[in-house]
Amino acid sequence: MSGWLAALDRRAALRAKAGLTRRLRPRAGTDSVVDLAGNDYLGLARHPTVTAAAGAALTGYGLGATGSRLVRGSTDLHAILESTLADWLGTGAALVYSSGYLANLGAIRALVRPRTLLVCDAHNHASLIDGARLSGAQTVVTAHADPAAVDAALAAAPGRPAVVVTESVFSVDGDLAPLPDLYTVTSRHGALLLVDDAHALGVTGPAGAGAVAAAGLAGRPDVVVTATLSKALGGAGGVVAGPEPLIRHLVDTGRTFVYDTALPPAVAAGVLAAARLARAGDDLRAELADRATTAVRRLRAAGLAVSDPAGGVLSITAPGPEAAVAWAAACLDRDVAVGCFRPPSTPDTRSRLRLTVNTGVPRADFDRALDIVVECA
Amino acid sequence: MSGWLAALDRRAALRAKAGLTRRLRPRAGTDSVVDLAGNDYLGLARHPTVTAAAGAALTGYGLGATGSRLVRGSTDLHAILESTLADWLGTGAALVYSSGYLANLGAIRALVRPRTLLVCDAHNHASLIDGARLSGAQTVVTAHADPAAVDAALAAAPGRPAVVVTESVFSVDGDLAPLPDLYTVTSRHGALLLVDDAHALGVTGPAGAGAVAAAGLAGRPDVVVTATLSKALGGAGGVVAGPEPLIRHLVDTGRTFVYDTALPPAVAAGVLAAARLARAGDDLRAELADRATTAVRRLRAAGLAVSDPAGGVLSITAPGPEAAVAWAAACLDRDVAVGCFRPPSTPDTRSRLRLTVNTGVPRADFDRALDIVVECA
Repeated sequence: MSGWLAALDRRAALRAKAGLTRRLRPRAGTDSVVDLAGNDYLGLARHPTVTAAAGAALTGYGLGATGSRLVRGSTDLHAILESTLADWLGTGAALVYSSGYLANLGAIRALVRPRTLLVCDAHNHASLIDGARLSGAQTVVTAHADPAAVDAALAAAPGRPAVVVTESVFSVDGDLAPLPDLYTVTSRHGALLLVDDAHALGVTGPAGAGAVAAAGLAGRPDVVVTATLSKALGGAGGVVAGPEPLIRHLVDTGRTFVYDTALPPAVAAGVLAAARLARAGDDLRAELADRATTAVRRLRAAGLAVSDPAGGVLSITAPGPEAAVAWAAACLDRDVAVGCFRPPSTPDTRSRLRLTVNTGVPRADFDRALDIVVECA
Repeated sequence: MSGWLAALDRRAALRAKAGLTRRLRPRAGTDSVVDLAGNDYLGLARHPTVTAAAGAALTGYGLGATGSRLVRGSTDLHAILESTLADWLGTGAALVYSSGYLANLGAIRALVRPRTLLVCDAHNHASLIDGARLSGAQTVVTAHADPAAVDAALAAAPGRPAVVVTESVFSVDGDLAPLPDLYTVTSRHGALLLVDDAHALGVTGPAGAGAVAAAGLAGRPDVVVTATLSKALGGAGGVVAGPEPLIRHLVDTGRTFVYDTALPPAVAAGVLAAARLARAGDDLRAELADRATTAVRRLRAAGLAVSDPAGGVLSITAPGPEAAVAWAAACLDRDVAVGCFRPPSTPDTRSRLRLTVNTGVPRADFDRALDIVVECA
């Protein structure tokens, strides 16, 4: 075996020893598993209106976009999706990417100028961290959800352009960033605020417009929003939403936009249908909030350490990585899928179970699944 | 307007002055345009078997994968697609990503160890360049398709781990990297060879297995292949194919794999159907090669400077960026879509028209479109 493969094997052995081996568990289209792990918060991935819209576009447009957005990949479906998202989120414009990861890489790079300082929350998603790295900008990581720390970081770099980067609803613990306080700080310093609203779009805010809209920051000229289209919107892809000059800049110069094959038209069509359903889905959001409240109460009553969910995500602290794996496996043995987050997928050294609230799961199944999580603890 | 938006406007004005403004031109599902611009080389995006497979998966699995591959995003369709691709490409294993861009970012980072030297072809795709940047490794850019330059770069770093990164069929000019000579050099120095086979998969090689297979390098322990699933396979997504320990390493540690929503199951199903058709599609490849030969002969007979196509891509030199835009616009006015590549989308300062050969286009339309390209020159 080549030396590099032997080295990979040695590293795999070290991971196995630390309980950090991961395993893909392919699922069938239908199974008896109750989903407390996925991000289909409003149950729209299987909504008949969504799959019908995607199916019609398959027939009309074919499977792939056949090229990048600037060559042959832009369809009228992409254009309508972008204007719909901009209108919903209350931003001047929006640009759809083939993934949320690439949207985040593109947004951060576009906001970085010479001498820009990036100020990043310690719990930020990997795509935001990679975006900061790829931008080449000096980056300061501040304590989680700490506007005073952000203030200090900006005060230490007077006169420099700065961008503060945060998620809204954080992906592991489901807690909410203090967006109004962060905006007070960024606007005082003349900095920009970039918010990844992936776990909030469709879930929180007026008509589900997300946490940025809920904080009254939608459409501000110094706020940029990114999101995935793969969570509450049940599809795939990502979006950067913000002032029109930013979107124009991304179209002209954004490498992860220009040099990437466009989102398949059928996915754009399905997401468009989902966005319309989500916008009108106050009943779904009420059900989701009720289930989140129920889950926290039930799990805490059992003595578990549970985070405060701002949307459809909550986490339970596990004793360690192997215990977390065993706990999740025990749940799965009883047909309940939960997320198992261990380092390096966690922002700190704690391992967790992550539970999501998906309103597409029948309520009785959801309640029973909570019992099983407790019983397997 | 905020200062940053004014700065973006100033940069947009500079681009406009240089003829470098880009414009999205959304297309309908069906139009009268002859496609000499997209990458649907075998016409599989609209193949009824492909769209039917995707449609069935929409019904069975819903639209989105609802999570990352390690949470709820892995389906049996992803698993079958991965084993099919590994078998076709002749590698030990394969891992599917939501885009080719993310596959390239992930592959390069996984191959970089402390002190690794990256040796990158000057014409490499943006995703490979970004992968090199994101890896943090020292990177040397060598002259295009120049094994002697690669040899010199490796000889100048004795004892260091090294990875040579190249496309096979290059995306702008459609020429082929000298893969056998490159492999002679990399194997002599104990370096790895990473080949982005995006424009060759399905188009060249035995049973369309790509340029790496055509060069007899498939399955070598020191060769890694990446590709998109959005060109000859007519869908979306990307793949890293290589030895099994590498794939295991990516599953455990690859950030652009672990922290990204999985490819939609319906897209995986459609791509799987397309892969089977492409593998059996020697007739399609013969037609493609014949059209490429015809195109070169016809365009050169008209006095145009045309690249030598190794697959379905060829370029024609344009006098400048504005002339290229005008040329492409004149073609489009006559219902022929061609690619228009200007800096910074080109590896050098030359602007080009890029033509692609898509066998889904009726032959008579293809031949007529070549005449129109010449008439608009």
